[in-house]
Amino acid sequence: MKKHAHFQTAKHIMLGSHVIKDLKEPLGGLSDSIGHALIVTQGAIQDLGFTHIIEDQLLTMGAKVDVNIDILPEPTIDNIEEVYENIQGERYDVVIGIGGGSVLDATKILAVLMTNSLSVENMLGTNQVEKPGVPTILIPTTSGTGSEVTPNAIVTLPDEELKVGIVSQYLLPNLVVLDPSLTLSLPKSITAATGMDAFTHSLESFISNKANPFSDMFALESIRLISSSILIAYENGSSIEAREKMLVGSMYGGMALTAAGTAAVHALAYPLGGKYHIPHGEANSMLLPHVMNVNMDAIIDRLNLVAEPMGLSIEGKPKEKVARDVVELIETWTAKLNIPQNIADFGVTNEDLDELAVAASKVTRLLNNNPKELTIDDIKSIYQKLLP
Amino acid sequence: MKKHAHFQTAKHIMLGSHVIKDLKEPLGGLSDSIGHALIVTQGAIQDLGFTHIIEDQLLTMGAKVDVNIDILPEPTIDNIEEVYENIQGERYDVVIGIGGGSVLDATKILAVLMTNSLSVENMLGTNQVEKPGVPTILIPTTSGTGSEVTPNAIVTLPDEELKVGIVSQYLLPNLVVLDPSLTLSLPKSITAATGMDAFTHSLESFISNKANPFSDMFALESIRLISSSILIAYENGSSIEAREKMLVGSMYGGMALTAAGTAAVHALAYPLGGKYHIPHGEANSMLLPHVMNVNMDAIIDRLNLVAEPMGLSIEGKPKEKVARDVVELIETWTAKLNIPQNIADFGVTNEDLDELAVAASKVTRLLNNNPKELTIDDIKSIYQKLLP
Repeated sequence: MKKHAHFQTAKHIMLGSHVIKDLKEPLGGLSDSIGHALIVTQGAIQDLGFTHIIEDQLLTMGAKVDVNIDILPEPTIDNIEEVYENIQGERYDVVIGIGGGSVLDATKILAVLMTNSLSVENMLGTNQVEKPGVPTILIPTTSGTGSEVTPNAIVTLPDEELKVGIVSQYLLPNLVVLDPSLTLSLPKSITAATGMDAFTHSLESFISNKANPFSDMFALESIRLISSSILIAYENGSSIEAREKMLVGSMYGGMALTAAGTAAVHALAYPLGGKYHIPHGEANSMLLPHVMNVNMDAIIDRLNLVAEPMGLSIEGKPKEKVARDVVELIETWTAKLNIPQNIADFGVTNEDLDELAVAASKVTRLLNNNPKELTIDDIKSIYQKLLP
Repeated sequence: MKKHAHFQTAKHIMLGSHVIKDLKEPLGGLSDSIGHALIVTQGAIQDLGFTHIIEDQLLTMGAKVDVNIDILPEPTIDNIEEVYENIQGERYDVVIGIGGGSVLDATKILAVLMTNSLSVENMLGTNQVEKPGVPTILIPTTSGTGSEVTPNAIVTLPDEELKVGIVSQYLLPNLVVLDPSLTLSLPKSITAATGMDAFTHSLESFISNKANPFSDMFALESIRLISSSILIAYENGSSIEAREKMLVGSMYGGMALTAAGTAAVHALAYPLGGKYHIPHGEANSMLLPHVMNVNMDAIIDRLNLVAEPMGLSIEGKPKEKVARDVVELIETWTAKLNIPQNIADFGVTNEDLDELAVAASKVTRLLNNNPKELTIDDIKSIYQKLLP
């Protein structure tokens, strides 16, 4: 246990199937009166009718509502600043983000852009945002990033082909709405990749050097929930019970990583996202077992603690065997979930590995959390495992 | 699982031995600048030197600091309003409460009195507070009420000899500081009573009709932490490890009860506190096993789920036996903790039971959470068990 631990999260979290229809009361509590609201989403979410449910409630409250669908997947700084410029004349009382991690991260950034005299670039890094933003409501439609409860937002620097983070307590939302009915129509591939992303958050937080009593509780409960539901949600997407477990498990993963930080898996995933556009969840999922194997001798005890929450029997087994079983179960899942195991399919060649390893080695903020120090050669050998 | 669940808590929680010395950074994040701070505490806490640690940090930040020690144990409305009148000319940027549940509850109320044009009486009930208060920092010095993370504050109505609650999201603090070193000198009797109070919060939340995925996680982790440390903290008060587990367990108990509510134990405890001044933790602890026995047939499955976190072996035992073991373990603890088992010692006689039962039956907000409906006769028979 580290000497000092911190826990920060959203002020209010609502959970339940169709709870998205009950926003009037919490909206009323956000400010004296909501005159003008901005909904940030993407076209596909709008087409599913979800934004209308929110709009209708705002309209009956007498608010004017704008809907913006211009945030791109894994948005660049330019994309977010362009969206901000287009709405800059407006004065919003609340900003509501509904979508996956990209939409939620962009929503968080837009809300603080509205109150801080800073560019997105000025905000990069930790604690650079100076003032609270416009109140936000975050409504995830995937069970993956946990962005709805983290003080982090990830953006892409296109010139450097790198993903970078903004970390600020002011990115935490006023309200999180967890409505599993919104995730029922998630395609199988997204259910798989985002679900494994969430699992990675929890497992990495649990083995992080900064693991603490807060992160451990959230990580273990997240692992328990995701382990018992990820294959069901994948095979039978209409199971509201499995969808709810995935959604809560994903949120707890976000809480765990907020308290303890992620580690080498995420450090190695960022260059794969920035340059090769490998979806974040898939990159994490591909890297997870290999990074765990490299960490193995430092994490045997911790992996034994996650075995039971993952549904593995541990009785009478040596600790080493239990730890290996944990990694093997992760591999079994990723096979059943049809998650890519090969970065060559995304255009990575053997010749790219040096550059990738150097880029990953610079993500010291996360590598410092890893239970073992990884050399550039260690990192390269992990990437190597993902080539045929 | 109930259809809709809510989770609300403090914005930021810090944990660690001597973390109270690291308040400058979080204080700086609370407002543009802290010109004037109010510390609410009691003389005994001030004598331990704890308030000086906070004052010193505020003074080096250039703030003026007032310390108020006029809040009484289990304060009445008049006590809080008198304290408020005495400071009404001042304009504070932060209100810091350091103490047990009474101090923390009073701090929460004082902070909203400063910004709302309401009397304490106007705020009684749920959601009557209209505006956020002055930013607050809550620093518990007992491991019991969980007040630092609840939207509740309890006050005494002396005329009606009744304890009543204020419930408002605006009572949630900006920062919680969990420093187990502050609890090292807690007297044994307070360790025992407040610890069992915390355990009661968690167990009642876990069997509450409003139990949900949020409250269950916090309740089970709280039960695990308290079960593994309450006797150690009592016998060996200087164990910082046991003190930390108790402090975190007590906070999780507060989170559990915020999400799910407490039930009959608390409903029956309030009249014992209001009229006979039985300390809240002792009243809860005395009532807990008896209320569990009355609820028994409705909570066998739930009690089986808490057995392992309580350290009980369940293998090969019938469910009924496991559930009885749970209640018996609670009774064993309360005996070892020397918690009173007799309300006659506090002046309650057989003739008072009808009035007590009627008073308890009016606490419908909590009785509605109880897994079984309790008649006035049921309630009376529970009180009867606490007479010789």
